[in-house]
Amino acid sequence: MLDKIKLFAPATVANVSCGFDVLGFCLDTVGDEMVVHKTQEKGIRITKIEGSELPLEVEKNVAGVSALAMYNALQPDCGFEIEIYKKIKPGSGIGSSSASAAGSVFGINALLGYPLNKSELTKYAIKGEALASQCEHADNIAPTIFGGFTLVRSVAPVDILQLPTPEELYATIIHPQIEIKTSEARAILPKTVALDGAITQWSNVGSLVHALHTSDYDLLNKALKDVIVEPHRKQLIPHFDAVRTAALSAGALGCGISGSGPSIFMLSKGKSTAENVEKAIADCYQDTSIPFNTFVSKINTQGIKVI
Amino acid sequence: MLDKIKLFAPATVANVSCGFDVLGFCLDTVGDEMVVHKTQEKGIRITKIEGSELPLEVEKNVAGVSALAMYNALQPDCGFEIEIYKKIKPGSGIGSSSASAAGSVFGINALLGYPLNKSELTKYAIKGEALASQCEHADNIAPTIFGGFTLVRSVAPVDILQLPTPEELYATIIHPQIEIKTSEARAILPKTVALDGAITQWSNVGSLVHALHTSDYDLLNKALKDVIVEPHRKQLIPHFDAVRTAALSAGALGCGISGSGPSIFMLSKGKSTAENVEKAIADCYQDTSIPFNTFVSKINTQGIKVI
Repeated sequence: MLDKIKLFAPATVANVSCGFDVLGFCLDTVGDEMVVHKTQEKGIRITKIEGSELPLEVEKNVAGVSALAMYNALQPDCGFEIEIYKKIKPGSGIGSSSASAAGSVFGINALLGYPLNKSELTKYAIKGEALASQCEHADNIAPTIFGGFTLVRSVAPVDILQLPTPEELYATIIHPQIEIKTSEARAILPKTVALDGAITQWSNVGSLVHALHTSDYDLLNKALKDVIVEPHRKQLIPHFDAVRTAALSAGALGCGISGSGPSIFMLSKGKSTAENVEKAIADCYQDTSIPFNTFVSKINTQGIKVI
Repeated sequence: MLDKIKLFAPATVANVSCGFDVLGFCLDTVGDEMVVHKTQEKGIRITKIEGSELPLEVEKNVAGVSALAMYNALQPDCGFEIEIYKKIKPGSGIGSSSASAAGSVFGINALLGYPLNKSELTKYAIKGEALASQCEHADNIAPTIFGGFTLVRSVAPVDILQLPTPEELYATIIHPQIEIKTSEARAILPKTVALDGAITQWSNVGSLVHALHTSDYDLLNKALKDVIVEPHRKQLIPHFDAVRTAALSAGALGCGISGSGPSIFMLSKGKSTAENVEKAIADCYQDTSIPFNTFVSKINTQGIKVI
C-alpha cells in the first residue's frame, strides 16, 4: 500500500445562479496541491504550508480539522503528515477552504485503501469547512469531492446528487481582489422573498437540472438566472453588471456570483467562447483601481485527483 | 385527408408538490372524449355536449374559444363541428377545462394535416383555458398536449419542457366532491415566503427533475414535498393530512393537492402499490359525509390520443 500521495484539490463554484445554497460545480485549472504521508507515529500533523499564511496547528487549520475528525472516527494504527501548497487564494469565493478540507480527508482515505465513500468523506470535510465559515455546509465540499455539478440536498445526513455535465461546458472566472466579509454577505440577504420570485427561481432550477441532463445549452442560457439573491449581493461587487453585460455579449450562457463573492463565474459553450468571455470581462476591470485575475477552466467531472 | 377524428383528451395534475405553478403530469385512465368533424360550412360549431351542463355557444365554451382562436389565426377554407363527451368533472382539480380546450385544437390540427406543433397548439388552448380560469396559464394544458411530465417556463411566449417519465410510475387520484372556489384558493396564498423555505422548495424541484431523469424512486419520495403552498391550501380540503398519512403508509412516494384541489394525487412505483394506496385513501373518506371517487392511472406519456 502507498505511504505517500500527491493530490490536486480543485477550486469550485457554489450558489450557481438560481441554485443558491444547493448547486455547485468543480473547476479544473486552479486548485491546491497537497501531499499526504502515512507515518508510524500516530496523529495528524501539518508539516508544511506554502502559498498562504495559514496556521500549521491542526486544530486551527481547515485541512487539519477535517483530517482529525476522520482520524478520530476511524482510529487507524498509523498517523498522517500533510503538506499544503496553496494555489487558491483564501477569501476569493471559489472554495479555498473546502479544497484543503476535502483534500486532506481524500488523501488519508486513499492511503488507508479507500474505506470511506464520497458521502462519508463529505461528512468529515464539512467539519473543516465549518472552521472557516462558522457553519457546516457542503456548497463547495460536494463539488470538490464528487466533481462535476452537484446538488446538496442535506448535510445532516449528507445527501448529495451528482448531476451530469455537458461535454462542451467551460467556466470563466474573474477574481476582483476585494474583501467581502461573510457576515456582510449574509446580512444583506432578505429573510422573506416574493412568492412570484421564488416560483421563477424554482422554475429555473428545474430547467437548469433538465438542461444539464440534456446538454441543452440554450436552456442553460435561459435558466442561469438568480432573481432572489444576486440583486442584493451584487452591490458588494464593483462593476458586477458591467461584467455580466460584457460576458453575455461575448457569448457566455450565464454569469453569477461565485459563492458569496467576490469572484464572478461565467459558463460558456466551448473553450474559445470562454476565452473570449475572459478577455471581455478583463476589459471591464482593466481601467479600475481594483487588482484582479481571471482564468478559464473546463468543468472538472472527477473532482479531487491523484497527481 | 380525414374529415372526422375521435379523441381522448386526458385529465392532468398541475402543481406537482414542490413544483407549484410549473410542473404537471398527464393521466391516462380518465379523460374527455371528443369528436371533431371537418365541414364545408365555415366557422366553429359545438353540436353536442354530453356528461355535463356546459354551454353550446362557442364563445362561452372553453373548447369553442380555443378552437376559434386557432381558426381565426389559420383561416382555413372549411369549418369544424365539435362534439364533447365530458368524462372529467368540472371543478375537480384535474384539468377538466384544459382537456376540452386542448382537445378541440388538437382535433382541428389533425384534420388540417398537422400544420401546428405542440407549442403552437398550447398557445391557442390557453385562450380557452383563460375563459375558465380568468388567466392564461398552461399548468394543465401543457401535460394534456405534450404528455408525461412537463415544466412550464413561460406562456408568452410558450416555453414548455418535456421531462422524462419513469417506466413504473402510477398515479392515484381521490376526488372529494366539494367545491373550492379558485378565488379562495388564490386568496389563501401568501404574497411572500421565507427564504429558507424557498431554498428547500427549489432544492426539491431540482431533485425531482433529476429523479425523473434517473428513474430514482427513492429520490422522488424525498423530493415530492411542498413546504410553501400546501400548508396554506390543505385546510381547504377536509382530511387532507389523513389521506397523506394513509397514502404514504400504503407505499406512495408522495402526495399533494392536484391543481388547486379538491382532488388529491399520489404517485407510486408500480400499479399494485398505486391500487393499495387507492384502497387506503378511500378508507379515509368512507366514514365521512363527503361523496368521493378514486382512480388509478399510469402516467400518460403521449397526451391527447386519437381513438
